[in-house]
Amino acid sequence: MTRINPGGTIGILGGGQLGRMLALAAANLGYRCHIYCPEENSPAFQVADKTTIASYTNDVALTEFARSVDVATYEFENVPAQTADIVSQNTLLRPGARALMVSQDRLTEKQFLADAGVKTAPYQEFHTAEELDAAFKVIGRPSVAKTRRFGYDGKGQQLVKTSKDLAKVLSVTGSTPAILEGFVNFDREISVIVARSASGDVAAYPVGENVHTNHILDVTTVPAQVSDLVEAKAKVIATKVANALEYVGVMGVEMFVNDDKNQIIVNEIAPRVHNSGHWTMDGAATSQFEQHIRAICDLPLGPAEARGAVRMKNLLGDDILDCEQYLADPKASFHHYGKSDPRPGRKMGHVNWVEPAEG
Amino acid sequence: MTRINPGGTIGILGGGQLGRMLALAAANLGYRCHIYCPEENSPAFQVADKTTIASYTNDVALTEFARSVDVATYEFENVPAQTADIVSQNTLLRPGARALMVSQDRLTEKQFLADAGVKTAPYQEFHTAEELDAAFKVIGRPSVAKTRRFGYDGKGQQLVKTSKDLAKVLSVTGSTPAILEGFVNFDREISVIVARSASGDVAAYPVGENVHTNHILDVTTVPAQVSDLVEAKAKVIATKVANALEYVGVMGVEMFVNDDKNQIIVNEIAPRVHNSGHWTMDGAATSQFEQHIRAICDLPLGPAEARGAVRMKNLLGDDILDCEQYLADPKASFHHYGKSDPRPGRKMGHVNWVEPAEG
Repeated sequence: MTRINPGGTIGILGGGQLGRMLALAAANLGYRCHIYCPEENSPAFQVADKTTIASYTNDVALTEFARSVDVATYEFENVPAQTADIVSQNTLLRPGARALMVSQDRLTEKQFLADAGVKTAPYQEFHTAEELDAAFKVIGRPSVAKTRRFGYDGKGQQLVKTSKDLAKVLSVTGSTPAILEGFVNFDREISVIVARSASGDVAAYPVGENVHTNHILDVTTVPAQVSDLVEAKAKVIATKVANALEYVGVMGVEMFVNDDKNQIIVNEIAPRVHNSGHWTMDGAATSQFEQHIRAICDLPLGPAEARGAVRMKNLLGDDILDCEQYLADPKASFHHYGKSDPRPGRKMGHVNWVEPAEG
Repeated sequence: MTRINPGGTIGILGGGQLGRMLALAAANLGYRCHIYCPEENSPAFQVADKTTIASYTNDVALTEFARSVDVATYEFENVPAQTADIVSQNTLLRPGARALMVSQDRLTEKQFLADAGVKTAPYQEFHTAEELDAAFKVIGRPSVAKTRRFGYDGKGQQLVKTSKDLAKVLSVTGSTPAILEGFVNFDREISVIVARSASGDVAAYPVGENVHTNHILDVTTVPAQVSDLVEAKAKVIATKVANALEYVGVMGVEMFVNDDKNQIIVNEIAPRVHNSGHWTMDGAATSQFEQHIRAICDLPLGPAEARGAVRMKNLLGDDILDCEQYLADPKASFHHYGKSDPRPGRKMGHVNWVEPAEG
């Protein structure tokens, strides 16, 4: 329940665009930020009061970092368990280590969600060729093989539609533990950005609808084209997940929706601010970044309503060179992450369009 | 007309809250900021990519600073002429030196405004006791004696209502040049925040109405309680001033209004982002800080309409300790400048309340 008042120092593990936007939001509330990241020239360094360039396995640097801050948080879910341990031995870590443990592994994540009473796709774990065959007999096709750990943006995944696909699975998952997941027929992907404060207050933003291109988020629109029932159910699910984890901070809960049946299954949870919540920077009175800072500092949560209809578009790679057109569009709010190298597929910035609600 | 694209570096002279909020807005657009300020622990340092702690008369440090940035700007109008010279010899300085020259001296300011066809209070310059007597014969009472330079928040001023007041004037103005200004009967003080880009585009925000307490801005409300005619005239005046100066950046133009006569006179101009424009951070799609960055980088200006009715309140000194009440208020947006010492009267933060416009 420890409250960290404005003027305090927040430590952030990870120096990418999420860390940068967290630092900007924290500064607006009067906090100083200390960014810890192994990569030189990390975007978040440009806006931080203090920076540490060191590996996530450098115990000495981690200890110094943790002792220099009032609370530590992270911008990515793959923080090593040992890193989280050292930090939490020396300062408050919010969200806590359990959120990392659960979300880093697709198997523990699915088990946690089942325990919380939340529906997911059917799955079977496998490791060897024999286990894969056994899993395939239960799950059938189409299905998707996914490594349990370190998958993102479609990496470490193999869609299984044919026997040929099945033969490819082990070359994709390699020798690491994996799961075979039943392919879910869904009409749309949605996500809920939910915040839970150290005091246990919860605020869920309106449901966003996500469109991916090449496995990377392209566009989020709010409101999602779902029934009121699905909107309400999705928020209940996200709240249930946050409460079951005794979560502190903002998290993204990705879900698949079957429109006819008003059915929702949870795809995955991300224990951090989430790309599909970037619309809140202009489309809500409190951005997900400020909300995360409020939550981990145990301040009151801010209002999470949308200001109107919002559309967020990611700018990947060279998309960023079109910034002029967005800056000249009076309905667009443009955000640039300060990265100098627009590699293909790299998240360079985003644009929000807000259409104010009718009064 | 040089454009500085996102990714470039902006230099800011001055590291107070205005420099800090400029740096935060610049970062959102992808710029790096280099803050130059003589005071250690300046609030803007906490959010800057680079910092220089050096005096404004340190030519070597100024030259290095200027050469490290693509464009330089400032957060205060009392930048010494010599400082501005050195910076502008080594990089773009926006707004330019003329805006500083005109606004640093109440006499040149009034002369400039008269030349631009803008009405001000009647005034006479004086230096000696004899000149003061002569000025008093022309201006009469009530009047206000003001030093020509370095006055702010009511410092260096003496209201003259009685002969006793008149006798006090020289002890207040000291041996520095001053003016005696006719006291203007006005019903309200308003200000217009106007932006002019390097390409000459102009955008004026809606008129704000200001209430001062102890000579320090307390509250700004938008819209101002003025007629449509005054609203329109005030914007025209601010635009005229910006154009006459060939100004580049955001400026604040303070005016007095006589309601019955729909009369406006300009009180003073501030060649920088302005406290009475802080409402734009939550009450407009483009904040005055982002607008200033757009203007000096020659990007398209953003929309300057208000989102609804807005009220901005400054938090001075210990006011900041009430942050909990503002953070808990769903209609309030809270801003904290990251200053650790809440001295009486010190600007520590502000709060904006936005009441969305009816659709």
